[in-house]
Amino acid sequence: MKKTLSEIAAFLGGDVSGDGGIVIERIRGIEEAGEGDMTFLANPKYRKNLETTGASAILVARDTTCEGKNLLLVDDPYRALGRLLALFYPEEEETAGIGEQVSIDAGADVSPEAVVYPGVHICRGARVEARAVLYPGVFIGRDAVIGEGSILYPHVTVYRRCLIGKRVILHAGVVVGSDGFGFAVPGRENQKIPQVGYVQIDDDVEIGANTTIDRGTLGRTWIQQGVKIDNLVQIAHNVVVGERSVIVAQVGISGSTQLGQGVIIGGQAGLVGHIRLGDHVMVAARSGIHKDIPPNQIVAGAPHKPHREWLKLEAALSKLPEMRETVAALQRRIAALEEKK
Amino acid sequence: MKKTLSEIAAFLGGDVSGDGGIVIERIRGIEEAGEGDMTFLANPKYRKNLETTGASAILVARDTTCEGKNLLLVDDPYRALGRLLALFYPEEEETAGIGEQVSIDAGADVSPEAVVYPGVHICRGARVEARAVLYPGVFIGRDAVIGEGSILYPHVTVYRRCLIGKRVILHAGVVVGSDGFGFAVPGRENQKIPQVGYVQIDDDVEIGANTTIDRGTLGRTWIQQGVKIDNLVQIAHNVVVGERSVIVAQVGISGSTQLGQGVIIGGQAGLVGHIRLGDHVMVAARSGIHKDIPPNQIVAGAPHKPHREWLKLEAALSKLPEMRETVAALQRRIAALEEKK
Amino acid sequence: MKKTLSEIAAFLGGDVSGDGGIVIERIRGIEEAGEGDMTFLANPKYRKNLETTGASAILVARDTTCEGKNLLLVDDPYRALGRLLALFYPEEEETAGIGEQVSIDAGADVSPEAVVYPGVHICRGARVEARAVLYPGVFIGRDAVIGEGSILYPHVTVYRRCLIGKRVILHAGVVVGSDGFGFAVPGRENQKIPQVGYVQIDDDVEIGANTTIDRGTLGRTWIQQGVKIDNLVQIAHNVVVGERSVIVAQVGISGSTQLGQGVIIGGQAGLVGHIRLGDHVMVAARSGIHKDIPPNQIVAGAPHKPHREWLKLEAALSKLPEMRETVAALQRRIAALEEKK
Repeated sequence: MKKTLSEIAAFLGGDVSGDGGIVIERIRGIEEAGEGDMTFLANPKYRKNLETTGASAILVARDTTCEGKNLLLVDDPYRALGRLLALFYPEEEETAGIGEQVSIDAGADVSPEAVVYPGVHICRGARVEARAVLYPGVFIGRDAVIGEGSILYPHVTVYRRCLIGKRVILHAGVVVGSDGFGFAVPGRENQKIPQVGYVQIDDDVEIGANTTIDRGTLGRTWIQQGVKIDNLVQIAHNVVVGERSVIVAQVGISGSTQLGQGVIIGGQAGLVGHIRLGDHVMVAARSGIHKDIPPNQIVAGAPHKPHREWLKLEAALSKLPEMRETVAALQRRIAALEEKK
Repeated sequence: MKKTLSEIAAFLGGDVSGDGGIVIERIRGIEEAGEGDMTFLANPKYRKNLETTGASAILVARDTTCEGKNLLLVDDPYRALGRLLALFYPEEEETAGIGEQVSIDAGADVSPEAVVYPGVHICRGARVEARAVLYPGVFIGRDAVIGEGSILYPHVTVYRRCLIGKRVILHAGVVVGSDGFGFAVPGRENQKIPQVGYVQIDDDVEIGANTTIDRGTLGRTWIQQGVKIDNLVQIAHNVVVGERSVIVAQVGISGSTQLGQGVIIGGQAGLVGHIRLGDHVMVAARSGIHKDIPPNQIVAGAPHKPHREWLKLEAALSKLPEMRETVAALQRRIAALEEKK
Repeated sequence: MKKTLSEIAAFLGGDVSGDGGIVIERIRGIEEAGEGDMTFLANPKYRKNLETTGASAILVARDTTCEGKNLLLVDDPYRALGRLLALFYPEEEETAGIGEQVSIDAGADVSPEAVVYPGVHICRGARVEARAVLYPGVFIGRDAVIGEGSILYPHVTVYRRCLIGKRVILHAGVVVGSDGFGFAVPGRENQKIPQVGYVQIDDDVEIGANTTIDRGTLGRTWIQQGVKIDNLVQIAHNVVVGERSVIVAQVGISGSTQLGQGVIIGGQAGLVGHIRLGDHVMVAARSGIHKDIPPNQIVAGAPHKPHREWLKLEAALSKLPEMRETVAALQRRIAALEEKK
């Protein structure tokens, strides 16, 4: 694809500073970009590369200036990058149809407009809607539903009765609907609590590779509209993840915990069970969350605390060895004072 | 299924407080339950829902009272719930037989009473016993054994020579018998140590989705009878997990570490290699375990300490910024006293 | 296989102390070994087993002595063990050829010397080189390359355009090339940033079961020559892992972070994005890395600090409850002194 910088500016609703007639053929990173390439500056850490990049043009925030460079000024360069990549690198069209070596039980309902690769297995009672794409090795359990336009990459497993909405993306190895971890008298009897619920994933959700989402013990585990979950995340039985929440890699959320809308959980954090996080809570990476958090709070640490308190604690901690010496010195000085009496 | 509350009481060995003739058709959560539903109260956190639930009856602990509600009093409501769910929602029977598009090498021994779905691969020398269920995409390596009645969900991989006992449940994506992580002169030569051992999983074990269990370097990695392991857990080479131990999601156990019987490890904890945890040790979630622990201890923190010491440390930590100010004030007061001399 | 101790010594370049004529048939662990077995002592923790082992001979470090035992003295017993295991337990030869029920798109280029098991899917434009082994359920995306002699265990997924070098080992369930986690205006819009890059894995890399490696947003995620990665590790988009680095289980590395050569990262550690770790940096297990680290440093803790500082901090921390009492006592003593004025 070839576009002039001015054409791209019109597409993105941005303004050109420099030569609007220059032709862009590719999008590349700021260090690799050369002639014919557009690059972007979204993270201030890479500001120093702006002067030295060989790119023909750079997508930047509105307040940016750089002598002698062709800039495309937009409100949010990262957001604009997303739109630009979708323009330059459109998804390849998949050919609808059911491949060979596919195993579909009698009583499954697969749209002729779906794309079903070889090696897929669809159980009885399941429904696969139009334009859904099932890559090789996908397993759809009994009475499960895969909504319109959803993409299931290789080896995704959807257990019986789980419901996947429209335009959902499940990356390779995702497991939806495995049994929740419920055993009575643990460590002694380990009597299994049958997990008879299901998982409901609403529209426009994306879930990263090898992430696991357990079915409800009773009722549902619920991933609401627009949620984005990274790789290797564990979501336990009966968890609710509110609309548009974002969960980074290797997070673990224990049973029956509920997240509000737009919650953001940093990587490797862990949440105990049976708690509620309010809307737009932000949890720092590696935090350990042990109780409810009201809306709009930023928390960090394990056990977690408000972010400001955590900063104070970390500052005090870094001075702890020094403080230990101070206290020892104070003991000596007091002893000296006491002796003089 | 329909049962009166009295019939259920007889089945569970419990006592009715209220109308024993009421008919129960389903089991549901305490917030969703309505007419015809039985629910349960196992976690005191949900005590407030007892008055407001619309359920026809509630399974509760023996000391519970609630005016105007039909209660079923039992010793352990969670345990009773497990038995009740098994009664109301029995497992669907699988039809024995070997599906199409199954690939079984010559010299593999598969019971005609086993259930083998399409897309399964069984290597030479392997044995699959009666009533074992192999879902699509299961891989059984050379000379591996799958015992009677075990269920392997989609895409489980059992590497060569690994032994799976009877009534074992392996959830989707579990890997049994991958190479242990052994490299000589790490970071310089990374010379691979061949991993020539195996994994032995005893009867009645259940392992969660996408958990990985490495084969022994020499000899076995051993998961003993009745152990329950959650999702995304890492068990390294030559680890021994003692009978009926319980390991929560995302735990990592390093090479050659041994757990006694009935050990419980909370989520996201990590254990170094070559240590022993005694019987019935309990490890709090997110702990870092760096040395042996005697039987029956409860530990927490990273590095771990006895739970009481950990509580004291956490209490002191939460006061640290305050203490820092106290020490600064003490310094000023001592300086003032010293000046007066 | 049968070899005398002297023959083994010649093979390994070691020296015999004891009976060089004794015949060795197997290699076993120091606690299990008996007559005809060779064992090894690489970890000083097991020194006590040296006297009591029933092994016919023991592979030990050069400075070791043990009355009445047949010792094979070498510079590095663990490294020698690796060579010995490769001698006694050679890999089984795989028969070249393409199995039944394999699905290869027109326009894929698969060497007749490759080993392709049933249930493999290879997309158009992909290339599989000689002696590569693809186990059942492996998925090779469009235009991907699998180099000579690489082994992909069951259910490995290689997304489109990813490049796998020679002699690479990918264990079961590894995902290479899933989309990086990039969403603009997170928690509000979650607008997807298309991930149009790829993953490049160089020669002699080994990657553990169910590990996930995301493709670059633009350009590549790059795992360099000789790197060893354990199970359940998360490598985000555009990360670079330098030659011969070693990454232990359940580590997470965030986007665009770069590791130098020979870096060693302990289990469950987490690294933020956009930082650089110099050559031969060592990161302790469970550390949280938040900024650049110069070469050859050893760090620990979360947030991380140089290992010595971390030791001092941990020592001070363990005395914190005690120090709290000391400070309270100091307050009382100062108050008493002040009163006396």
